[in-house]
Amino acid sequence: MTQKKKALEGLKVIDLTSALSGPFCTMILADYGADVIKIEPVHGDQCRTWGPFDKKSGESGFFCYVNRNKKGCTLNLKSEKGLQMFYDLVKDADFLCENYKGGVTKKLKIDYETIKKINPRIIYVSGSGFGLNSPISHRPCYDIVAQAMGGMLYLTGFKDQPPVKVGPSVADHVSGIYQALGALVALHYRDRTGEGQLVDVAMFDTIFSLLEAAIPYYTMNGIISERNGNIDPSIAPFDVYSCKDGYVALGVGNERLWKKFCQTIGKPELLEDEKYKTNDLRVQNYKSGLQNIISDWVKNYTKKELEIMMDEAGIPCGPVMNIKEAIEHPHTKARDMIVHVNHPTAGDLAFQGVVAKLSASPGEVTFASPLLGQDNCEVFHLTKEEEAKLQEEGVL
Amino acid sequence: MTQKKKALEGLKVIDLTSALSGPFCTMILADYGADVIKIEPVHGDQCRTWGPFDKKSGESGFFCYVNRNKKGCTLNLKSEKGLQMFYDLVKDADFLCENYKGGVTKKLKIDYETIKKINPRIIYVSGSGFGLNSPISHRPCYDIVAQAMGGMLYLTGFKDQPPVKVGPSVADHVSGIYQALGALVALHYRDRTGEGQLVDVAMFDTIFSLLEAAIPYYTMNGIISERNGNIDPSIAPFDVYSCKDGYVALGVGNERLWKKFCQTIGKPELLEDEKYKTNDLRVQNYKSGLQNIISDWVKNYTKKELEIMMDEAGIPCGPVMNIKEAIEHPHTKARDMIVHVNHPTAGDLAFQGVVAKLSASPGEVTFASPLLGQDNCEVFHLTKEEEAKLQEEGVL
Repeated sequence: MTQKKKALEGLKVIDLTSALSGPFCTMILADYGADVIKIEPVHGDQCRTWGPFDKKSGESGFFCYVNRNKKGCTLNLKSEKGLQMFYDLVKDADFLCENYKGGVTKKLKIDYETIKKINPRIIYVSGSGFGLNSPISHRPCYDIVAQAMGGMLYLTGFKDQPPVKVGPSVADHVSGIYQALGALVALHYRDRTGEGQLVDVAMFDTIFSLLEAAIPYYTMNGIISERNGNIDPSIAPFDVYSCKDGYVALGVGNERLWKKFCQTIGKPELLEDEKYKTNDLRVQNYKSGLQNIISDWVKNYTKKELEIMMDEAGIPCGPVMNIKEAIEHPHTKARDMIVHVNHPTAGDLAFQGVVAKLSASPGEVTFASPLLGQDNCEVFHLTKEEEAKLQEEGVL
Repeated sequence: MTQKKKALEGLKVIDLTSALSGPFCTMILADYGADVIKIEPVHGDQCRTWGPFDKKSGESGFFCYVNRNKKGCTLNLKSEKGLQMFYDLVKDADFLCENYKGGVTKKLKIDYETIKKINPRIIYVSGSGFGLNSPISHRPCYDIVAQAMGGMLYLTGFKDQPPVKVGPSVADHVSGIYQALGALVALHYRDRTGEGQLVDVAMFDTIFSLLEAAIPYYTMNGIISERNGNIDPSIAPFDVYSCKDGYVALGVGNERLWKKFCQTIGKPELLEDEKYKTNDLRVQNYKSGLQNIISDWVKNYTKKELEIMMDEAGIPCGPVMNIKEAIEHPHTKARDMIVHVNHPTAGDLAFQGVVAKLSASPGEVTFASPLLGQDNCEVFHLTKEEEAKLQEEGVL
């Protein structure tokens, strides 16, 4: 078997990002072969202090996961020498990625207007809570704030209960994916024209873009969508049901599936019931009847039994799996969604693999996240003595 | 002002996708200027029957939103003539996008192995529930099923209550974004090497990739993360609080912010409290004390008052906004996150704009979603008479 080439090989990414959203973007670029040089402040990326921790080495599993495949340097951008070293570094870079709060890059003299004078071909990727041209650009933003303001938190949860945030940090992650996407659109543009540009992604906009039909429901019909638990507002049955040993999700999205479903649960009489003749009627009469009928049936079976029955009938169904179950599912193995890497101090680590599978130039995890400043000498062309001197001066 | 060029201009996308996940991918490609030709079965994409509906024309707002900027044809791939017309169409295409259930493309004779013989340079983008090489590839999958099996549903909701799905269809959307991302990675690879390839994205993997530290918590320490309501498992205070007229999200992620926060809420004594000295201690003692202290303070203020106070203090905070509030927020306007388009039968439509803002080659919404089969003559080079004949034969 010949070694497959990597898609983004030879592209140099200067990575000033920290925490999650920006690093998730540069992780994606690194997974596909870009040469990502992560630059941390002298005290390190804040997420080096976020759990889980390796018991022996104390390394943050969070940091290791999202910074795999990256080289690592330190640099004090507030020192004159550090800033100069940074300018030297970006001269031949293809991408500069940052996720500072709005306004910070200007203060640091590393904003796009400054950098493009040094390197007009650079693609400058900026991820932030509210983007670069919003009246609230200056505000700090966490995932939960973007979920709240972008409209997703309001729509998640049960009707008669407080809104609830999406468990994992969906605003951070998806904003990171949009940043990588924008970077690649800009790369194709540069491949054709030679021109670099600025890519500007906001977490608010990211969340807003996922609201689906809720937006046209309002703009078209003035309807303010409410949270609806596990029920789809326009399809029924489409819900999560409690079973013998947990929960299962079931979706019956068209007439063909509805017929199959009634047969599978041994209730063909539902097909003749006027209340359930069409999807619209099933939606209208779900809570007042259909929901109970299905719940009463489901509770007699286990997750596994239901999964198998519905699989045989071709009806979309899935058990609500916890982390262990999801990791151990045969699907996860077949798709290489858990990858291993050997870390110099933490040893064998396992975390999420690459999502978009490319047949000719697949992404892969090749090496572990960097120890703080481990590649200073290589990246800045320093001897060990020069590095020590710059560390003493507070530059590295 | 000169007209800005579009990044993906001149790229031809043959789009067989339906419903949401695949169409969201091709919508992104179309927004950046790709020439997307949507091919629907003769009876139309199923989501033409999904609400909201325009009262006069009956058009689906859902369909119009996610299929803007695309041309539209019909084609019966199960007819011999239809299949031949399809093969002709893909000869010079850059991308073929599909989101059939695993196995269907082979049955239709339009799988990657078949298509690459016709056009070896093509980038074939496949979106599905479980990808092309999973033991459960054959299964149908809805968003809720991917959220359930991928591990997100289990992690969303309050601790003592059933799990709850993310309101909007996060698996569909984010899978669509990953499909577009994979397509662009493959495009760069083709720009360098001339080689096309297969891009394979699963909704299960998409969700799994968003689980963040929950995965290393299990692989490193054997901990199965549980849902935690609005509380972050590793930062405190970080929660959603009930206020006078709704809810606000607040995140206090480091020591500097904690100091600011205690001053802002007029409780500097908390800074001296041994129980809250470090973030780790605040996490440990949040539910037993800190949560109530903050809740009691927050409930005296309105969303707006809290937003302004926290903005002035530089503390990440955001009101939980409903659709109307999110649409009408000045941020949304400044970022062009609502765009308008004139639809031939439904008139003025307004929906989500483009997320990743590119300065030199921005994405934009130029024209409305297609009426069923509206571009048949142009795309297949037919006269009106030829079109009518093929329609009679059941090919179009």
